[in-house]
Amino acid sequence: MEESLKLHYEWKGKIATTTRTHASNRDELSLAYTPGVAAPCLEIQKDISKSYELTNRWNTVAVITNGTAVLGLGDIGPEAGMPVMEGKCLLFKEFAGIDAIPLCIRSKNPDEIVQTVSLLAGSFGGVNLEDISAPTCFEIEKRLKEICDIPIFHDDQHGTAVVVLAATLNALKVVGKKIGDCTVAMSGAGAAGAAIASLLHACGAKNVLVCNRKGIISRKEGNTSAVDYIASFTNKDNIEGTLQDAMKDADIFVGVSAAGLVTQDMVKSMADNPIIMAMANPVPEIMPELAKQAGAAVVCTGRSDYPNQANNVLAFPGIFRGALDVRASDINEEMKLAAAYAIAGLISDEELNADYVLPAPFDERISSAVAKAVSEAAVKSKVARI
Amino acid sequence: MEESLKLHYEWKGKIATTTRTHASNRDELSLAYTPGVAAPCLEIQKDISKSYELTNRWNTVAVITNGTAVLGLGDIGPEAGMPVMEGKCLLFKEFAGIDAIPLCIRSKNPDEIVQTVSLLAGSFGGVNLEDISAPTCFEIEKRLKEICDIPIFHDDQHGTAVVVLAATLNALKVVGKKIGDCTVAMSGAGAAGAAIASLLHACGAKNVLVCNRKGIISRKEGNTSAVDYIASFTNKDNIEGTLQDAMKDADIFVGVSAAGLVTQDMVKSMADNPIIMAMANPVPEIMPELAKQAGAAVVCTGRSDYPNQANNVLAFPGIFRGALDVRASDINEEMKLAAAYAIAGLISDEELNADYVLPAPFDERISSAVAKAVSEAAVKSKVARI
Repeated sequence: MEESLKLHYEWKGKIATTTRTHASNRDELSLAYTPGVAAPCLEIQKDISKSYELTNRWNTVAVITNGTAVLGLGDIGPEAGMPVMEGKCLLFKEFAGIDAIPLCIRSKNPDEIVQTVSLLAGSFGGVNLEDISAPTCFEIEKRLKEICDIPIFHDDQHGTAVVVLAATLNALKVVGKKIGDCTVAMSGAGAAGAAIASLLHACGAKNVLVCNRKGIISRKEGNTSAVDYIASFTNKDNIEGTLQDAMKDADIFVGVSAAGLVTQDMVKSMADNPIIMAMANPVPEIMPELAKQAGAAVVCTGRSDYPNQANNVLAFPGIFRGALDVRASDINEEMKLAAAYAIAGLISDEELNADYVLPAPFDERISSAVAKAVSEAAVKSKVARI
Repeated sequence: MEESLKLHYEWKGKIATTTRTHASNRDELSLAYTPGVAAPCLEIQKDISKSYELTNRWNTVAVITNGTAVLGLGDIGPEAGMPVMEGKCLLFKEFAGIDAIPLCIRSKNPDEIVQTVSLLAGSFGGVNLEDISAPTCFEIEKRLKEICDIPIFHDDQHGTAVVVLAATLNALKVVGKKIGDCTVAMSGAGAAGAAIASLLHACGAKNVLVCNRKGIISRKEGNTSAVDYIASFTNKDNIEGTLQDAMKDADIFVGVSAAGLVTQDMVKSMADNPIIMAMANPVPEIMPELAKQAGAAVVCTGRSDYPNQANNVLAFPGIFRGALDVRASDINEEMKLAAAYAIAGLISDEELNADYVLPAPFDERISSAVAKAVSEAAVKSKVARI
């Protein structure tokens, strides 16, 4: 922490602008600016899609937060979220060559946030929402996806879900199970939890039980709309109970909640060869060595000091690269599933083992493999525009 | 035009992002992103002004349009304005090392534009409004200046006014007149016209007569609020008449209107040694050779193929550099006046002549001289924050 702070004072910002041409003499100025610039302006006026050819829109993503759910720090304010947004922009550039712009919005009001982002949509090829707290983030994303003609992607939800699904697909191969036969117990019903449950369900998981602080989410009176949404496709028998109850006989545990919520006994109560994805950061729901000792067949965490690190950087750079490459109007379920399969597919059957279900973040094949799969899925699902 | 279009297709955008650090291995990732990035976030949460030290805010300006008054092309739409915004960002970088971000807003509604910009203000060190049509631009700028804690500067208004004032100060030296003795006749009451009239008035011009299409603006029933504003400090005798009437016996003509509106006879009707600033682009209100022939002592235009080019690039890079350098909360009248005097002051009394009242755009002294003067004026007028 101390070293990072010191470096941030030295960097004075992690992202800056650079130019693709110059204006260092009269001729250059008249070509890049007035009077020459009138020509590309008029081309775009005739056909707005030319903005993807005559400006940097084809390669630009806005990384937008309101600072309400930054890392594990919570609601620290828009400006205080900017070091993370700049970091994300750095990753966009380094992992996928994307020009990402960090923006923070001084509002917690969904109407204001939706209006701000939608009015700016003509400036970008896509929008990555980041660190916006649940349940507001669900409404914001849903409404923006309806209004905007560019991809809107809340990475805390869908990036995480894609990586968890990728790990799940490979972990299931390791233990010789099929997702359609599996029960999933989850801890955490925030932004990531809802999206993971949804994507696992879309991929065929037999039954998903999502727990929040009150226990297993079920269809009942008095639920918030965010809880109701999760209840609508999970917990098929509509049982009630605790996380402990949910984990009994489950094949897969996914935690996106808090340190230490899972005991060894809870792991032991699961079905044979359980898969544990304990993603709470920096301290997971159960430490990998304890999970293994209790019989876990595969363990993933968010940590870089253990095998199988589930890191969003596996997904979002390639997902946006793929979406931008075909000028996609959306990042849809098909594209997210394609991304998960592409990440999982980077590990061959020969290499695959309990300690290697996810490629390492710095595996250079990832971004282009994901981009290719996502582009193809965009074309197939008819959201590609070139 | 053809060559510029071709180049724009090659560039595919004139501005991109670059990084001030890397994330190419686990250690770098943990310092620039999680978990290390939590430290700068918490510092900013404690003290928002640290966002100027720990992120790129100290050097970031947003260049924002809604595409309603782009160049001389008019209301061509937000996306179609982006080649100009990118060009402006290029100039910010090349002339003052500023990281400028091009943004377009899909709205003509002042409320929406004000809200969008003000909610984003925590992301930037300043905002340059660009190519927003009058009279909406006046309301937008006024309200944003009231709400925001960062400088809001509509360059079409104030950048132009600063350069015109700089040229005026030196031209008056050439003809041996004092601004306090001068009558100014103006053609054009749009964004630039209003700001020029205001700044010349603030600098002591005896009487300013501003003409729109209907003639000399005067205090009377039925004026729009934008016209009323101009009438409130111009035309001290509240006369009525045409541009021809206004120019009779005037010492200075300033045109920010349309090609060819001024005849040689109108120049001949002016006071001795008249100063002509014919800024309509690309064809001025009167061509320099005709103006000279009719007795003009000094002629300025917006054109690079004649002497005395009044180009906004003389002003805005240094003005923002100066504002950013002292973390100014505003760009106020004192700072604009300081910028004009700094630009004019770059030409020594020995060098000064009728064909050299403004430094050339690529004179490398300009940006730092303007920045220094603007910083000092910000400190003196108590809007500097460091």
